[in-house]
Amino acid sequence: MPKNDLFLQALAGQTVSRPPVWMMRQAGRYLPNFMKLKTKYDFFTRCQTPELAAEITVMPIDQVGPDAAILFSDILVVLQAMNIEVEMKDGVGPWLPHPIQNTSDLDKVIVPDVNETLDYVFGAIKLTLEQLDDRVPLIGFAGSPWTLLCYAVEGQGSKTFDKAKAFCFEQPELAHCLLQKITDTTIAYLKTKVQHGVHALQLFDSWGGLLSPSDYQRFSWPYIQQIVDALKDDIPVIVFGKGCWFALKEMSQSGASALGVDWTCSAANARYLSGGNITLQGNYDPARLLSPISKIQEDVRQMIDAFGKDRYIVNLGHGILPNIPVAHAKAFVDAVKNYS
Amino acid sequence: MPKNDLFLQALAGQTVSRPPVWMMRQAGRYLPNFMKLKTKYDFFTRCQTPELAAEITVMPIDQVGPDAAILFSDILVVLQAMNIEVEMKDGVGPWLPHPIQNTSDLDKVIVPDVNETLDYVFGAIKLTLEQLDDRVPLIGFAGSPWTLLCYAVEGQGSKTFDKAKAFCFEQPELAHCLLQKITDTTIAYLKTKVQHGVHALQLFDSWGGLLSPSDYQRFSWPYIQQIVDALKDDIPVIVFGKGCWFALKEMSQSGASALGVDWTCSAANARYLSGGNITLQGNYDPARLLSPISKIQEDVRQMIDAFGKDRYIVNLGHGILPNIPVAHAKAFVDAVKNYS
Repeated sequence: MPKNDLFLQALAGQTVSRPPVWMMRQAGRYLPNFMKLKTKYDFFTRCQTPELAAEITVMPIDQVGPDAAILFSDILVVLQAMNIEVEMKDGVGPWLPHPIQNTSDLDKVIVPDVNETLDYVFGAIKLTLEQLDDRVPLIGFAGSPWTLLCYAVEGQGSKTFDKAKAFCFEQPELAHCLLQKITDTTIAYLKTKVQHGVHALQLFDSWGGLLSPSDYQRFSWPYIQQIVDALKDDIPVIVFGKGCWFALKEMSQSGASALGVDWTCSAANARYLSGGNITLQGNYDPARLLSPISKIQEDVRQMIDAFGKDRYIVNLGHGILPNIPVAHAKAFVDAVKNYS
Repeated sequence: MPKNDLFLQALAGQTVSRPPVWMMRQAGRYLPNFMKLKTKYDFFTRCQTPELAAEITVMPIDQVGPDAAILFSDILVVLQAMNIEVEMKDGVGPWLPHPIQNTSDLDKVIVPDVNETLDYVFGAIKLTLEQLDDRVPLIGFAGSPWTLLCYAVEGQGSKTFDKAKAFCFEQPELAHCLLQKITDTTIAYLKTKVQHGVHALQLFDSWGGLLSPSDYQRFSWPYIQQIVDALKDDIPVIVFGKGCWFALKEMSQSGASALGVDWTCSAANARYLSGGNITLQGNYDPARLLSPISKIQEDVRQMIDAFGKDRYIVNLGHGILPNIPVAHAKAFVDAVKNYS
């Protein structure tokens, strides 16, 4: 059990002295040490080399001081394991040379033995746990099946993922087949992470908010629910759906331990929409970390006052931006630690 | 008064035989005739030549049959009139070579005499009204001040407009000064559109949904309210804030005649959040127009049943996509006309 277990207490709904804090993408490009590694090793080398992934995961714990670590990796490694080629192109981001378009493409997609294809992730967990030395809990994560389908079909990032949506609307049977393959792989992947000792899991539905509520219930939510059902008895699961305010009610009844919300959903709306009892996580606008430090400190106090100190995990509403000064990230974390 | 005044009846909250229908960006790239003009004339030539703008505005009335026309133009012509250079680059979209970054940039931004700088828009209104020959009402529009600031500061389109947000968070006084200049210009621009005979106005806050509710109340809403206040006694005003579900309550009390909603806000949520009495407009997912026609017809029936036929204007939840077959757009419009 980690010495600092505030994060796990909040996930269990226990009364805490202050809320725990971590930041999505906290092991990332705003850290100068990360940028040094980035010049030496390409993206997937960093993900696939346990020593590098562990070093990056622990960086923010030493330098910024959040109450939880999140394993450095990428949601797209699951697609790679499923026999879908994924590259990371400078200035473009994720690039999939052979996006899924038809039955023949889909036939090539496998549900792999995760111990073979994703062994480097489990190696990274082992090394990270050694280096964390029980200071803080370690979070494992995966993308939601819908969010992974977005990349698998669109072939790259997009504002609106219209090709991915068109695939679902024009060929719903193929879409559901792909979503189920991703779901089956993700469940095996996350179960193995649990066996290797992570303390909590987070599912990222980064593109769920692009769907209408009814399409969300068709193409995203049922697959997230399958994953939560498969894991919830073993470990606390956090579900973060960017822009998914409209689904907070279903999410709150899913067996998840906590729900992530973004900054467009006020604390009052988030508590109301999620029924008032489940632990919530969020929701500072990442761009707001560019405010003067005194403003960040004031905002953090107001945010905790609005969510309440219990059943609450302080976080950003999405990943931290590359241009945030480390001092501002640390001021955000320290403001939570100084809350009283 | 247009012979088909269903749209104006719905804006006035009157009981109608069926709801009116139009589509955002209905005069656009899914129309083969538009694509022919696009090969001959560049973007701003199309906007700035009254004969072309009028021809494009009327195209969908003849070919698809909506109950209102919306003047072909662009929200960024207002920035051009304010002495901010705007280009349209192939494959990039809007491109502003000198984005606003500091006081010296801001000093160069003017509140122009719109009769001089935007006369081509008023010329286009005159020609369009002649060609419409009172068949359907004509909508004039403008971008919200926040949405125009996004482009003026970011210098191009963006998923998250982080530079624009950083500008507001780091230099709020400059941001408010720019927003006020845009607001003053927009009010003069829209008042002159009204003098030239448009029947209704729509404000597009395309990027309002990128702000937290409190930042929305700082940087977007007060300026929209100023515009509504200045126009509402002369003409019906529609406010469309993409992703702005959290502000529907304030919007419903603003004096606007109708509120646009996107597809992430269900009819029930939209009616609840807007207080139940104001006319709503929306909200079919534009990508859903790629569904089979029978599915579009079913969806339209369900959407009207959910919103109710009165105090409702059928529309998409954002602009129509370039790859929508004209037959599908027409099926959407016809499904509304056949509603009973």
